[in-house]
Amino acid sequence: MRPKGFLFSVADAAIKQPGHAEGTLIKPDMALICSETEATAAATFTTNKVKAAPVRLDMKRIASGRGRAVVINSGNANACTGRQGLRDAQETAKLIGQRLGIPEGLIYVCSTGVIGVPLPMDRIRQGAEGLSANLGKASLEDAAMAIMTTDSFPKLASREVKIGRRGGVISAICKGAGMINPKMATMLCFVLTDIAVEKNALKSALRDAVGKSFNRITVEGDMSTNDTVLALANGALGNLPLKEGSKDFKSFGEALSDITAELSALIVKDAEGATKFVEIEVRGAKTELDAKKAANAVANSALVKTAIYGADPNWGRIMAALGRSGAAVIEEKTGIHIGGVRVVDKGVSTGKEDAARLSLMEKKIKISINLNSGKGDASVLTCDLTEEFVRLNSKYTT
Amino acid sequence: MRPKGFLFSVADAAIKQPGHAEGTLIKPDMALICSETEATAAATFTTNKVKAAPVRLDMKRIASGRGRAVVINSGNANACTGRQGLRDAQETAKLIGQRLGIPEGLIYVCSTGVIGVPLPMDRIRQGAEGLSANLGKASLEDAAMAIMTTDSFPKLASREVKIGRRGGVISAICKGAGMINPKMATMLCFVLTDIAVEKNALKSALRDAVGKSFNRITVEGDMSTNDTVLALANGALGNLPLKEGSKDFKSFGEALSDITAELSALIVKDAEGATKFVEIEVRGAKTELDAKKAANAVANSALVKTAIYGADPNWGRIMAALGRSGAAVIEEKTGIHIGGVRVVDKGVSTGKEDAARLSLMEKKIKISINLNSGKGDASVLTCDLTEEFVRLNSKYTT
Repeated sequence: MRPKGFLFSVADAAIKQPGHAEGTLIKPDMALICSETEATAAATFTTNKVKAAPVRLDMKRIASGRGRAVVINSGNANACTGRQGLRDAQETAKLIGQRLGIPEGLIYVCSTGVIGVPLPMDRIRQGAEGLSANLGKASLEDAAMAIMTTDSFPKLASREVKIGRRGGVISAICKGAGMINPKMATMLCFVLTDIAVEKNALKSALRDAVGKSFNRITVEGDMSTNDTVLALANGALGNLPLKEGSKDFKSFGEALSDITAELSALIVKDAEGATKFVEIEVRGAKTELDAKKAANAVANSALVKTAIYGADPNWGRIMAALGRSGAAVIEEKTGIHIGGVRVVDKGVSTGKEDAARLSLMEKKIKISINLNSGKGDASVLTCDLTEEFVRLNSKYTT
Repeated sequence: MRPKGFLFSVADAAIKQPGHAEGTLIKPDMALICSETEATAAATFTTNKVKAAPVRLDMKRIASGRGRAVVINSGNANACTGRQGLRDAQETAKLIGQRLGIPEGLIYVCSTGVIGVPLPMDRIRQGAEGLSANLGKASLEDAAMAIMTTDSFPKLASREVKIGRRGGVISAICKGAGMINPKMATMLCFVLTDIAVEKNALKSALRDAVGKSFNRITVEGDMSTNDTVLALANGALGNLPLKEGSKDFKSFGEALSDITAELSALIVKDAEGATKFVEIEVRGAKTELDAKKAANAVANSALVKTAIYGADPNWGRIMAALGRSGAAVIEEKTGIHIGGVRVVDKGVSTGKEDAARLSLMEKKIKISINLNSGKGDASVLTCDLTEEFVRLNSKYTT
């Protein structure tokens, strides 16, 4: 089940491991995704004020709402690389465009890896040649492998969507294992579909799906300079472009949200050093924004995360995080469940800490908070904070 | 060098270790600080919306600007304990007041320790009896010991201040070792002086001193439900009460700021699990608020803190934290020094990572960031994030 009309290639530009020794494993670190025809394009980008060169480039190009291809490299983020970085990103797109006869403005560039080191353009140029020459010789899975950095497995999801009588397909790949190693990390996601979708409709569906998925996961609260989610809808299915408000658009949006939810959960599951998969749900907040603030404060609390790691039903840490979250929190109204066990009722202990401790020994944990102050709901996926996280992140990476 | 007119006592109420086994070390966990005469009082409290019962009580009482005594217990925070918690805090003050013939409204109560567990009032009552009976038999050092929780050493600082021809004294004790174990943590500080200070002047000097010290340290970004800084100025020196704007008030304020800066640095040095003492300085921000946002984002970044632990001059993590801080950050204007080594100039690498790595191997590290966008300055003291922090915080505490 793959969307029609997309071609792939991968290349080993030795960015991750410069100068392969003879006999060492060749590991692709460049990928090209190319639609056979011009596609409608939409994207969301990191809101970090420090943005990598390819992000700056893509933000300009996405204004057209059109795209043909995206070239990705892992191993180097091309971030904090000044004007040279921007020139390098442009040149990479240009090279691919020239070889494939595609206007360079329709080619997007994504990078992930070390911050602050100029791209090794000699090797990138060779890689771009290879990508162009071998287009069609790789699969979407190969591309998912090539964009991995600290990921321990490739991340891919697909859905079939009925559009009238036809069966369209949305597939997406992503990379990210938490920003556990930001010199080699970032969240990138590429959504490909053969369903024709009108420009603004694609934008709106993507924004909605990202809001409910990638924007609701957190590993350690840091944010990359390179995060990008890019969607290409090439219309190879032959349907009339989906418009907002239509029944088919609704089906499309639901399938897209399913895919991004599946992929974002995979990122949290792959968070290096993590031993537990945790959902923080906040209900009954005064507003949805309050619910998000509260859920994020709990999910990003180092103390809550270490307590979960140690299976310590230390709900005082949750109360303290709620209280400093900026959300309207009334202690006497607050209830907390840990893994189905009500540990706090009306702001005080229920005495069920022992039962909660057993729940915390599971691999998958849900912490549900009811602020009983309104109708705002939100949930966030996160993981525990472990010695292994510290070990991985304190190793020399430069 | 101690302020005149203050008496102290400590008691072992077996709060930390209920039911001492025979032969085990007796460890005081209650302290009483009492001024011989009514003192001017001022305080600052946690801004966490979830506030411990004693904090709620003290917030009401401090409105009078007067005080005689403060009774402190460690081992139990009396937080998230509902109405019973408030009654318990009130009763503790009342008991002391009755024994010593002090109006209970002039007695402040502070607690630090486990959240969500009612105070063991039978033992607290016995402790309060002991504190009253033994007033004057302990020293300020003994009090500093009694309020410790996870602290590895007592924290005390003093300064002499010339007021006219007389020499007044300010002494302060505090506890806190980072909120490394929030079921047994919190920052408490008690400032005692024999210098007479007018009510609003004391308030203003305390607020200023706390803003430049305790509000500029961070260990893991979490905030306690019990933080309290309380000042008592009993005027035993016999000077005319200091007024804002006067020369003597200025000397007083400077000495007070010195003391709180000294104590807050001791808290960071005592942060459990930490191996390094780190100053994050931000200059040239658009506003002072921006400077604080930027400094806090860097100081609280798990990735920056683990990099420091591993002596990794990974300045991309600093740039990424600045970019998501909410402060106005222009990448191309940003400069970063690590331990005196300029690693980033105008947003790009200077290539001096190796020299910076050597600086990061020191125990005391200064990271200086210039945003070159205005005149806002701020600095924050913090520590590194280590496996030991995770180990300590993931141990069962209930």
